[in-house]
Amino acid sequence: MEYQKILEEIYREIKPEIGRGKVADYIPELAKVDPGQFAMSIVTVEGKSYNIGETKKRFSIQSISKLFTFTMALKMYSKELYKRVGVEPSGSPFNSLVQLEYEHGIPRNPFINAGAIVVTDSLIDHYKDEFITLENILNFIRAISTTPDININPYVAKSEMEHGYRNRALANLIKSFDNLHSDPVVCVETYFKHCAVEMNTQELARSVLFLANRGTDPITKKRFITPTQAKRINAVMLTCGHYDASGEFAFHVGLPGKSGVGGGIVAVVPGKMGICVWSPALNRYGNSHAGTLALELFTQKTKLSIF
Amino acid sequence: MEYQKILEEIYREIKPEIGRGKVADYIPELAKVDPGQFAMSIVTVEGKSYNIGETKKRFSIQSISKLFTFTMALKMYSKELYKRVGVEPSGSPFNSLVQLEYEHGIPRNPFINAGAIVVTDSLIDHYKDEFITLENILNFIRAISTTPDININPYVAKSEMEHGYRNRALANLIKSFDNLHSDPVVCVETYFKHCAVEMNTQELARSVLFLANRGTDPITKKRFITPTQAKRINAVMLTCGHYDASGEFAFHVGLPGKSGVGGGIVAVVPGKMGICVWSPALNRYGNSHAGTLALELFTQKTKLSIF
Amino acid sequence: MEYQKILEEIYREIKPEIGRGKVADYIPELAKVDPGQFAMSIVTVEGKSYNIGETKKRFSIQSISKLFTFTMALKMYSKELYKRVGVEPSGSPFNSLVQLEYEHGIPRNPFINAGAIVVTDSLIDHYKDEFITLENILNFIRAISTTPDININPYVAKSEMEHGYRNRALANLIKSFDNLHSDPVVCVETYFKHCAVEMNTQELARSVLFLANRGTDPITKKRFITPTQAKRINAVMLTCGHYDASGEFAFHVGLPGKSGVGGGIVAVVPGKMGICVWSPALNRYGNSHAGTLALELFTQKTKLSIF
Amino acid sequence: MEYQKILEEIYREIKPEIGRGKVADYIPELAKVDPGQFAMSIVTVEGKSYNIGETKKRFSIQSISKLFTFTMALKMYSKELYKRVGVEPSGSPFNSLVQLEYEHGIPRNPFINAGAIVVTDSLIDHYKDEFITLENILNFIRAISTTPDININPYVAKSEMEHGYRNRALANLIKSFDNLHSDPVVCVETYFKHCAVEMNTQELARSVLFLANRGTDPITKKRFITPTQAKRINAVMLTCGHYDASGEFAFHVGLPGKSGVGGGIVAVVPGKMGICVWSPALNRYGNSHAGTLALELFTQKTKLSIF
Repeated sequence: MEYQKILEEIYREIKPEIGRGKVADYIPELAKVDPGQFAMSIVTVEGKSYNIGETKKRFSIQSISKLFTFTMALKMYSKELYKRVGVEPSGSPFNSLVQLEYEHGIPRNPFINAGAIVVTDSLIDHYKDEFITLENILNFIRAISTTPDININPYVAKSEMEHGYRNRALANLIKSFDNLHSDPVVCVETYFKHCAVEMNTQELARSVLFLANRGTDPITKKRFITPTQAKRINAVMLTCGHYDASGEFAFHVGLPGKSGVGGGIVAVVPGKMGICVWSPALNRYGNSHAGTLALELFTQKTKLSIF
Repeated sequence: MEYQKILEEIYREIKPEIGRGKVADYIPELAKVDPGQFAMSIVTVEGKSYNIGETKKRFSIQSISKLFTFTMALKMYSKELYKRVGVEPSGSPFNSLVQLEYEHGIPRNPFINAGAIVVTDSLIDHYKDEFITLENILNFIRAISTTPDININPYVAKSEMEHGYRNRALANLIKSFDNLHSDPVVCVETYFKHCAVEMNTQELARSVLFLANRGTDPITKKRFITPTQAKRINAVMLTCGHYDASGEFAFHVGLPGKSGVGGGIVAVVPGKMGICVWSPALNRYGNSHAGTLALELFTQKTKLSIF
Repeated sequence: MEYQKILEEIYREIKPEIGRGKVADYIPELAKVDPGQFAMSIVTVEGKSYNIGETKKRFSIQSISKLFTFTMALKMYSKELYKRVGVEPSGSPFNSLVQLEYEHGIPRNPFINAGAIVVTDSLIDHYKDEFITLENILNFIRAISTTPDININPYVAKSEMEHGYRNRALANLIKSFDNLHSDPVVCVETYFKHCAVEMNTQELARSVLFLANRGTDPITKKRFITPTQAKRINAVMLTCGHYDASGEFAFHVGLPGKSGVGGGIVAVVPGKMGICVWSPALNRYGNSHAGTLALELFTQKTKLSIF
Repeated sequence: MEYQKILEEIYREIKPEIGRGKVADYIPELAKVDPGQFAMSIVTVEGKSYNIGETKKRFSIQSISKLFTFTMALKMYSKELYKRVGVEPSGSPFNSLVQLEYEHGIPRNPFINAGAIVVTDSLIDHYKDEFITLENILNFIRAISTTPDININPYVAKSEMEHGYRNRALANLIKSFDNLHSDPVVCVETYFKHCAVEMNTQELARSVLFLANRGTDPITKKRFITPTQAKRINAVMLTCGHYDASGEFAFHVGLPGKSGVGGGIVAVVPGKMGICVWSPALNRYGNSHAGTLALELFTQKTKLSIF
C-alpha cells in the first residue's frame, strides 16, 4: 500500500480542520503554542517511515507519557501492579474522586491521572529516588524511540506545578488510603515532569513500534516487554486511552491509541505499524481535533481498523 | 485452520473449570440451572459451523439481548439515538445512579441496564405498542439467527419482574429527566421480556455473523445494518460489553463480545466469524467463568485477538 | 405579651415581600395558586389564638404532612422506626440517590422524600391497606387539629402522580434494598395523597400545639405521644425540617419548623405555642419567602428563638 | 438549682460508662491517653463555677478549635464569610469529597474539615502570615477563656501532620476551585496546629460563656461578637456540631454543642451557661461516649434542653 500517498491525501483533506478547536490553556506554557500546526508519521514493522507536515517539530507529549510509565511499571511488577491500579475504563471525570473513594484509593486504570500518579509512584518505589526515576523514564523513552536527546521542558513542568492542585488532591487522597509510598508532592512533581517531555511525531511513532510487534522492537530486535504485556497495554489503550471519548475513538479510529493535551496522539496497528499524529487544537474531550480526524481517515482509507 | 480440533482441545482443557463459580441466583428461575453445562459454537463467514458440548440446549440469553435491541435501535434512529444514550464505558456499578443523575438521565452506553432500558423505550416509541415491539424484537432475532422458533420463557420474565425494583428505579429516574417516553413499568416489563429470550449457542453464534461481515449476513446476503453501524456496535461491545470487566475481557480475549448472566457470551471476529460459548456458572463480575476462559484459549490458540 | 399586635406589626412590615418569589410550578394544580396571599396564626398552650390575614383559606400542606406521618410512625414503632429511617440531616438534594445507595436504602431522615416514603410504608404496614392508612392519617390530623372536616384535594394528588417519577425512582430503589414492604407504586400514591391534604393556618397552628406541650394537647388534655417523642420530633424538625435551608432556618428563625411547597410553614415554640404561616411564593430553597421572613420577625420581636 | 449536686449525681450515674468506647487512635499521640478519665465543668452567666472530676487536666481540644476559628472569621468577615463556606449540615462523611466537587469547592459548613480549612485560610488571609495567625488564634482563646497560658502541644500537631493526607487532599481540591488563598500545605499545617491546642474543662466552659450571653462575656463585659453572630454560631453548632451524629445530639442533649476527638464537648445553654465535659473514650460517631451521656443526663435533670 502507498502509505506516503495516503498521508498526502489525508493532509489535503484535513487542512480546513487544522487549527479548529482550542489549544490547552490551563497552563500558560501550553497556551502559547500555534494551533495551526500538523504532523503525521508512520513507522512500519519492516522499518519503513512515512511523514507529512512538521514531523520534526517537538511538542509536549503530556499524557502520552502515561503509556511509557505504565509500560515500565508493567515490566517491573507484572501482575502485581494490578493490586495498585486497575485496567477498567472509568466513568465521567466528575466521578474520579468519588470513585477513588468508593474503591479505597485504587485508581481504575493507568491512564486517568490518579492511575498515572500511582504508576509514577511505583517507579519511584523501584528506583528509590525521584531524580533517578526521571532519568530512567527518559532513558526508556530514548531507548524505545532510538533517540538519545529526548528531554523535559522545565518551563512546562514548572507551569504545571503551579496549577496542579487537583492532581495533588488525588495524590493525597490515594496516600490516605495507603496506596502511595512516596511523598505526594514529590510524586506529583515527578509526574508533571515526565508529562513535560518533548518529542516529535517521528520519534513518537517509532517509540510505540514495539507495541505493534508483541513487545519487541522489530528493527533493533530488542525485547522491551513480553507479548502478553504488549497485548495488555494495547487493550488498555483501546478501552481507556482517550478519557471520556474512548468509546468514540474506538469507533471512529478503531485502533489502540493514547492522546495528550499537547495535541499528540499515538496509535498502534497490531502486527503492522506505529503511528503518531499531532495538531495542538483540541476538541471538547481534550483530544486533538485534526489529529483524531486524520487517524479516522487513515483507518478508513487503509481499512486497518481492528473492528 | 482446524477449528473443530481447537474446540475439542479447548473443551478438554476447560473441563476442570466447568461448574466453578456461581449460577445467577437473584431470580429463582435462573438459580435452578445446572452449573455443570458447557457449549461452544462457531460460524464462519464462509458458512462453516463448528460445535462442541451442549450446543442445542437453549438457555436464557439475558443481557445478550441488549446487543440485538441496540442493533435494531441504531438501524432505526442512526445517529439520533446518541442523543438518548451514549457510547462511552461507565465506571463501577455503584456509580450507575449518580452518573445518571449527573448526566441528566442520559445513560452512558446501551449495555448498562439504564441504557438498555432507553433503547427498549426507543423501540416501543417506534412500534407504538409494547406487544408489537416484542414481536418485532423476536422477529429480528429469528431473522439474524435464521431460526423461526425463538421465544421468550415467560417464567423467567415473570421472575425478573418480581425482583426488578432497581431497574424500575432506573426507569423512573430516566423518566423524571424526560428521557423515557413510555410508562416506566411497561418499558421495564418489555425489557425483562426480551432478556428472557432463550437460544442455544448454535443460534447465537449464527445471530452475530452479520456483525463479523460489516452488517450483512454473509450466507443469505441479507443486509441488516450499514458497515459503519456494524463497526460502531463492535466498538461498543469491546469497550462496554462486559460490565465492570470490559477491560479484562478486552485484554484476555481481545474480541468484541457481549455476555449475559444466563452464562452465555457472544463474540465477533471481524471479517471471520461469530462465536458463542455458554456455561452457567459465573465469575465475580457476572460473566461465565468457563466461557470467558474458553474464549481466551480460543484467541490464544488461533491468534485471532484483535490486539 | 401582645401577640395580636405583633402579628399586625409583622403583617405591615412583610407586605412588600408578599408575592415575591415563585409559586411551586412542578405540578399544574399548585401553579394556579395566587402568590399574593398571606396568613399567620398562633395558638398558645393556654388556648389563646391570634390570627392575621387569610387564616381560614385552606391550602395544600404538602411536606408538612411528613410531620404528621412521622409522628404517627414514631408512636407506633417507637425506636424500632430508626432501623428503617435515620434522624440525621442530609446533604444536597443531588446526593439523595447516591446517599440512599451508599447507605443501603436507609433514608437519612423522615423529612426528605425518601424518608417520608418509608414512613408512609410503615403506616401501610401497620394498617395493612392503603385506604385504611389514608383514613387513619386523616383522622389523626383531624384529631390533633380538632377539625373534623379535613380532606385530600384529589386534583392535586392526581397532578402529583402524573409527575412523580423521581419519587417512584426513590421508592423502587428503597424496595430493591428491602426497606419497603408495600408496592412502590401504591406507597408513592399514598404518599402523594397525604401531601395533598388541605388545611388553613388556624388548623395547622392548632395541630402542632401538642408538640409545644410535650406530646399532650394542652387544651383537650389528650396525650398523643410521649414527652421524649415530642422532643425527638422537635429536634428532627430543627435539624432537617427545611431541606437544604435547615441551617439558615435554624439561624434566622431559631425554632423547630416544617415547611411545604404549598407555601405553609409550621413552627413550635417549646412550652409556649404552635405557629403557622402561609404565603405561596417560594424562595430558591422551596420554602415560603414571606413566611420565612414573618417567622424571623416573630422571633426577633418576641425573643422566642431557642438560641 | 443545685448544679453542684446535679454534677455529683451525673458523675455517680455515669461512672460505669467511663472508659467505654475507643480512644482516637489515628495518631499515636492521641492513642496514648488513658480512657478512664472524666471531667465536667459549668460556668453560669452570673459567674458561678461548678466542677466534677479532673477538671484541671488539659487535653487536646481538636475540633472544638473549629468553633473558635469560626467565631474569629465571622467577626472579621461577617456575611462575606458565607461566600466561602456554607452553614448547612452535610451528609455522610463518604460524601465529603463528592459534595465539595459538586458544590465547586464551597464546603457545607465550618465544622466539617473542609470548612474548617477554609476558615483557617481566611484567618491566614487576614493576618498575612501563618505564625501571626496562630498567635492570634491562641490570643483569642486566651481572651475568651481568661487564661493566659493556653498553648499548642507540638507533638500532637506533628503527629497529625504525619497522617493528615486526607485533609491535604481536601485543601488541594478546594485550592483547585480557587477557594483557598494560602498554600494548601501551610494552611493544613496551621489547621492541625490549632487543633492541637490543650485546655481543661474549666477553661473550655469559660471560653464559650460569651456564646451563652449574646456575644459578650457576662463577667468581664467584653463584647467579642454581635448578638446576631452569637445566634448564628449557636445555630450552626446545633445543626452541624457533631459530624454524622448532629441529629442524635440535638435530640438526646438538645443544646448547641461542639465535640472533638480528644474527648471534649462544649455546650451552650443560651442565656444561662457554658458547659464542658471530657472523657477520652469515643462512641462510633467519634464523640465522647461518657461525655455525651453526661450532657444528656444534665438536660434531663435540669430540663434545660432547648426543645
